[in-house]
Amino acid sequence: VSSIDGLPTPALLLDLDILERNLERMAARAAALGVRLRPHLKTHKCVEVAALQRDRGAAGVTVSTLYEAAVFADHGFDDITWAFPVILSRVEEAIELAARIRLGLVIDSATAVDALASCHPGGEPLRVWLKVDCGYHRAGVAPDSDELLALPRAIASADNLHFAGILSHSGHGYDAIGRPQMQAIAEQERAVMVDAAQRIRDAGVPVPEVSVGSTPAMSVVDSLIGVTEARPGNYAFYDYTQCLLGSCEPEDCAVSVLASVVSRMPGHSVVDAGALALSKDPGPERSAAGMGPVHAEDGLTLDPDLHLTSLSQEHGIVSRPLPVGTRLRIQPNHSCLTVACFDEYQVVRRGEVVDRWKIWRGR
Amino acid sequence: VSSIDGLPTPALLLDLDILERNLERMAARAAALGVRLRPHLKTHKCVEVAALQRDRGAAGVTVSTLYEAAVFADHGFDDITWAFPVILSRVEEAIELAARIRLGLVIDSATAVDALASCHPGGEPLRVWLKVDCGYHRAGVAPDSDELLALPRAIASADNLHFAGILSHSGHGYDAIGRPQMQAIAEQERAVMVDAAQRIRDAGVPVPEVSVGSTPAMSVVDSLIGVTEARPGNYAFYDYTQCLLGSCEPEDCAVSVLASVVSRMPGHSVVDAGALALSKDPGPERSAAGMGPVHAEDGLTLDPDLHLTSLSQEHGIVSRPLPVGTRLRIQPNHSCLTVACFDEYQVVRRGEVVDRWKIWRGR
Repeated sequence: VSSIDGLPTPALLLDLDILERNLERMAARAAALGVRLRPHLKTHKCVEVAALQRDRGAAGVTVSTLYEAAVFADHGFDDITWAFPVILSRVEEAIELAARIRLGLVIDSATAVDALASCHPGGEPLRVWLKVDCGYHRAGVAPDSDELLALPRAIASADNLHFAGILSHSGHGYDAIGRPQMQAIAEQERAVMVDAAQRIRDAGVPVPEVSVGSTPAMSVVDSLIGVTEARPGNYAFYDYTQCLLGSCEPEDCAVSVLASVVSRMPGHSVVDAGALALSKDPGPERSAAGMGPVHAEDGLTLDPDLHLTSLSQEHGIVSRPLPVGTRLRIQPNHSCLTVACFDEYQVVRRGEVVDRWKIWRGR
Repeated sequence: VSSIDGLPTPALLLDLDILERNLERMAARAAALGVRLRPHLKTHKCVEVAALQRDRGAAGVTVSTLYEAAVFADHGFDDITWAFPVILSRVEEAIELAARIRLGLVIDSATAVDALASCHPGGEPLRVWLKVDCGYHRAGVAPDSDELLALPRAIASADNLHFAGILSHSGHGYDAIGRPQMQAIAEQERAVMVDAAQRIRDAGVPVPEVSVGSTPAMSVVDSLIGVTEARPGNYAFYDYTQCLLGSCEPEDCAVSVLASVVSRMPGHSVVDAGALALSKDPGPERSAAGMGPVHAEDGLTLDPDLHLTSLSQEHGIVSRPLPVGTRLRIQPNHSCLTVACFDEYQVVRRGEVVDRWKIWRGR
């Protein structure tokens, strides 16, 4: 145990009190909404954080890469959904992993179904989810398309495949302005998915699960009737983007980057946290905090006069001249990308560093 | 040895023929200009690439973090400049490293000189460089300031410090449009630095080295009279930003991201290379290739109809619908940030994977 004041910079701080509060709040919310929580681990990539989520009732986990799936499988997580359209060049790897744990794969094309149907997993059939486009239009089959019925049928009729259900991501929620817009998107996602499930069932294919997911939607949604599970991820840490969306307040943000002023110029200062500590995520267009706001001295609220105006590889430009050696805590625009810049968290409770947790970043 | 066609995606490809040509060209250019080449390793973070640079006459190397300095010291590089204003919380680490190798530290403030002057390195004095602002205005003392003279005097008068020289980075070259503008910036950097060195010498402090550095400037500069060394980094790989600046052509770009189409939508396709494979660097404002252009099938020229329109964490949106399973090579907007997303290079020569080289990314 040592003070934050003694940490070399740059460092990624994880506030344990805030993290635990965030996890408990979302677990309670999922329970109240009557859905299982399958948190997305791409935000934290950390075994210790996932264990805290499991302790609070998470029913399985979600990952975005096969590397993450393998890491968490190696650490005792045995029910994992790889929530990314399956990469054909990695099907063999996926099948090896599916022999060890309950692995869910995602498809939205006949090409991918064909590739999986021609595999020989041995043992249990491969669990395959259909990605449905709930309005974000990034990926997934359209809910009114023929594929919505054809792909589940193809999965259900393949001996080596099991149709696990349908899955969506309301990423368009990140463009919402204000709570009513976000609520409308969340309800749209629910309604689209419940209707899609009904269409598939009416066509004679059972749909065991209806899975939705995004932190903004889960923060505001009133009802998830007809949905069986939710997969938010960012809620563990939140970030400045989520603050602007209204998903959280600045004091709910669990990670920050501790940086030092290394150069004082006439109109700005330079800190040792650049694009390789914060990522180049610009946050929402309407953000006035540039590449990231800076915490006030309390470490919780934000300093209205300080933010990062730009980033190069290792340099962060701060909006005001400050003495060399000044230490700042920067709130990330996007915590998921910031976390992926670091190898470990400095785990902090009430200003003391109580542990270091590994961040599993790989491919 | 195996074909690129068999690689799981996403993968970072490094073309060895292009790399070697880039290294030879810059080595010849530095020799013709009469300066020593001290390449910046932050671009590649790779021991094997640094060894190729040393084989071609590099006189020492440059790094951006103390972690990089330690890694390269552990691999036999014994003359390293840490070209970032010294971080006060890491001075002890720096001093330990300076006991093992010839380490250069950079300062641009009296605070940092005082911190170094109060250390006890044992052995040799610490080598300290003064950062001078050559027109970029990111960091460094102004060339007409009192500090330009006061800081070298303070360094020279401290028993435990050695004044190594002055150093600049013409990062404003990245805003240049066209070769004449870039040439003007390169000549500005040279003139500012040579004049600054003369002012310091006139004040009675010897200036052993005058070090400049940026790939765009080194690509066009006509004369470096009065300069002793140059520290370009990006030239080893180049990238789409450098193409737009006129530093190189697309066929000079040595790294690319091999990705697969995983989803085909009505107006676009999705590949498995998102912000965590390419970084969110948007490239120059005038780029028409969004988050990165895509190579034509020859792997060298660019496909005029294809580019990444946006990136989320693991998803890349490609400008046209393509069949699931299609494999693409994406040219990074910013190779340094893209490289830092990966753990290793797939080293390629004429379409064959001939080796894997580790990328040392850390803090």
